[in-house]
Amino acid sequence: MLGNFVYSNPTKLYFGDDSLKYLNEELSKYGKNIQLVYGGGSIKKNGIYDEVVKILKENGKEIFEDAGVMPNPTVEKLYEGCKIAKENNIDLILAVGGGSCCDYAKAVSVSAHCEEDPWEKYYIRMENVDNKIIPVGCILTMVGTGSEMNGGSVITNHEKKLKIGRVFDDNVFPKFSILNPKYTFTLPKYQMVAGFYDIMNHITEQYFSNTDDCTSDYIMEGLMKSLINSSKIAVINPRDYEARSNIMWTATWALNTLVEKGKSTDWMVHMIGQSIGAYTDATHGMTLSAVSLPYYRYIMPYGLEKFKRFAINVWNVNPSGKSDEEIAKEGLMKMENWMKELGLVMNLRELGVTEDMLEGIAKGSFILNGGYKVLNHEEIVNILKESM
Amino acid sequence: MLGNFVYSNPTKLYFGDDSLKYLNEELSKYGKNIQLVYGGGSIKKNGIYDEVVKILKENGKEIFEDAGVMPNPTVEKLYEGCKIAKENNIDLILAVGGGSCCDYAKAVSVSAHCEEDPWEKYYIRMENVDNKIIPVGCILTMVGTGSEMNGGSVITNHEKKLKIGRVFDDNVFPKFSILNPKYTFTLPKYQMVAGFYDIMNHITEQYFSNTDDCTSDYIMEGLMKSLINSSKIAVINPRDYEARSNIMWTATWALNTLVEKGKSTDWMVHMIGQSIGAYTDATHGMTLSAVSLPYYRYIMPYGLEKFKRFAINVWNVNPSGKSDEEIAKEGLMKMENWMKELGLVMNLRELGVTEDMLEGIAKGSFILNGGYKVLNHEEIVNILKESM
Repeated sequence: MLGNFVYSNPTKLYFGDDSLKYLNEELSKYGKNIQLVYGGGSIKKNGIYDEVVKILKENGKEIFEDAGVMPNPTVEKLYEGCKIAKENNIDLILAVGGGSCCDYAKAVSVSAHCEEDPWEKYYIRMENVDNKIIPVGCILTMVGTGSEMNGGSVITNHEKKLKIGRVFDDNVFPKFSILNPKYTFTLPKYQMVAGFYDIMNHITEQYFSNTDDCTSDYIMEGLMKSLINSSKIAVINPRDYEARSNIMWTATWALNTLVEKGKSTDWMVHMIGQSIGAYTDATHGMTLSAVSLPYYRYIMPYGLEKFKRFAINVWNVNPSGKSDEEIAKEGLMKMENWMKELGLVMNLRELGVTEDMLEGIAKGSFILNGGYKVLNHEEIVNILKESM
Repeated sequence: MLGNFVYSNPTKLYFGDDSLKYLNEELSKYGKNIQLVYGGGSIKKNGIYDEVVKILKENGKEIFEDAGVMPNPTVEKLYEGCKIAKENNIDLILAVGGGSCCDYAKAVSVSAHCEEDPWEKYYIRMENVDNKIIPVGCILTMVGTGSEMNGGSVITNHEKKLKIGRVFDDNVFPKFSILNPKYTFTLPKYQMVAGFYDIMNHITEQYFSNTDDCTSDYIMEGLMKSLINSSKIAVINPRDYEARSNIMWTATWALNTLVEKGKSTDWMVHMIGQSIGAYTDATHGMTLSAVSLPYYRYIMPYGLEKFKRFAINVWNVNPSGKSDEEIAKEGLMKMENWMKELGLVMNLRELGVTEDMLEGIAKGSFILNGGYKVLNHEEIVNILKESM
């Protein structure tokens, strides 16, 4: 059943191979000082950096560079970004990159004018934002996180071995995001398929909870089918515009708050995956793929009806003559085949996890209660062992 | 393939059986003068009127009544509403009702401060809005049109036998809409099922175009499956909260611009249906149901692949051993069975259409070119004859 909720998503999206041109009209809404956030410099190689800087200059903006955002943005980097934003009276933070850049931009956006330690206030104590928020715009070059149209922001504290995801209110959502599928063409395959699985897992985290009839579940089944179809094409030909554009759009809607509305959600794979990320700095999507099947196989009996529906509606499993459990298992087997077809990491060793880390990773995994089974520490350790 | 587009939907939605309470916080954002728009008085019988007026008074608002909005709001009524809005310096138009009230509220919103005849400027010449727009809020008591989260506004000119639908930009979208599924419980069955078919047709109008792979089509298949499932329950028990809440949510997403993004759309059933409405004043959803099957059976050969997909993915037609045409036909047959199960009007005579009107109705149908076949006048007349 659809529970009570509020839906509001003010992010404006410009989608398509001509979408960068809209940066001009967006820039006219903001002041002169732009904090240009990006990562390791791939946007300099593929020319996106030059295109963006040209538009910024044509619009008379002053650019304050904030480069070197790492795949899992750290709290130290956040402090650095806040300093840039505050000292230069930044009017707009423009993130050019993937989810990490968008996440980081939102973190700086709420933290720059925070009077106390923003890590403590906004990520540990999870307080509401009560200081000035600097507007954020995104130019996406990598898909998966949905960060371009939500309030999500994950920050890692290596010293404390904590990777914490925070979801801010809609006043922190990017004001606009520019989505050009072609910008995702040059991403290395490993990052590309990790992003694909991140999308899939965003959907399954929200799908595997409740057993009643809910419009959101039907929408998610549609999104998953589209993703499966397009990802199979994109993994063979990453420059297939149709496939990459469908995936880019699916990624946005998988995590822009729509499909969670009115239902409870799980998110335990992300909790375990984030803890692995804090220990290994592994690619986010791959931490999810490595633990997903052991996790889902373990909780399947507690949500059998939904796993059966998943098998039939998403993976086209023919149910005739099979028990519910057989149907559900066949669905997960088909998901496994698809994951292998994409070339995802299917075990933790490949990500640098060693046996001695497992207790710590399990301890660092926040335990949530929206899914089919509330896990205890022992169960998480067992799932991690299964994933080795 | 997903074409290029801009997506922006700023309407904030409050959904659930407690959602009216949010009216308090919304009212705090607007001035004192509220134009209270509603229809024939059913909200006085079911108590919603009293609840709303109580909240308005508690918030110190002055209420300017604008009652009697008819199912197909007329241009004369629009002029009346503009007078109320202008003379009383209205700060917020609050529509309490179904799609007609929301459509009408948006029409008044853009027309009240228009210097010339708004019918000519905004509905005939379809010009951009360049005058002051009065904010609109909606409290929905009937679902179907999606008007609570889009820029759509249909106004009827009986004298000229024109029923024209206009889609305004996102600055005209309702600022907020309150969606309480329980408010839809007391709607007469005829209106209820007409609304269900309106939803279905909104989706098929956007689904039956293009044959390539597009995320939007997968989302629409999910929405249709949810609607079919819930409508079968609601027609037996209109007070089934789960079914009615799913339908309410599906209706919003069927026509809030999401599913049309990146693809072309058809809308010919609506064009013909609106022309029928101008001649007969029949219930909108029933004008659509009466012509749908003759229309879809006629265009099916031109979009066979998609009709086949529709049959398999939405109606669970088993394709094995059947030709594409047989599969497609079986899908439409299953849709017909569902329509009859709901008790929809399946022919035009029942709506008061007579043979002598057919030429005029066909003439009054705007011919669009986004679907599988651009119809000519003769073809529309034939479809109308088939619908008698």
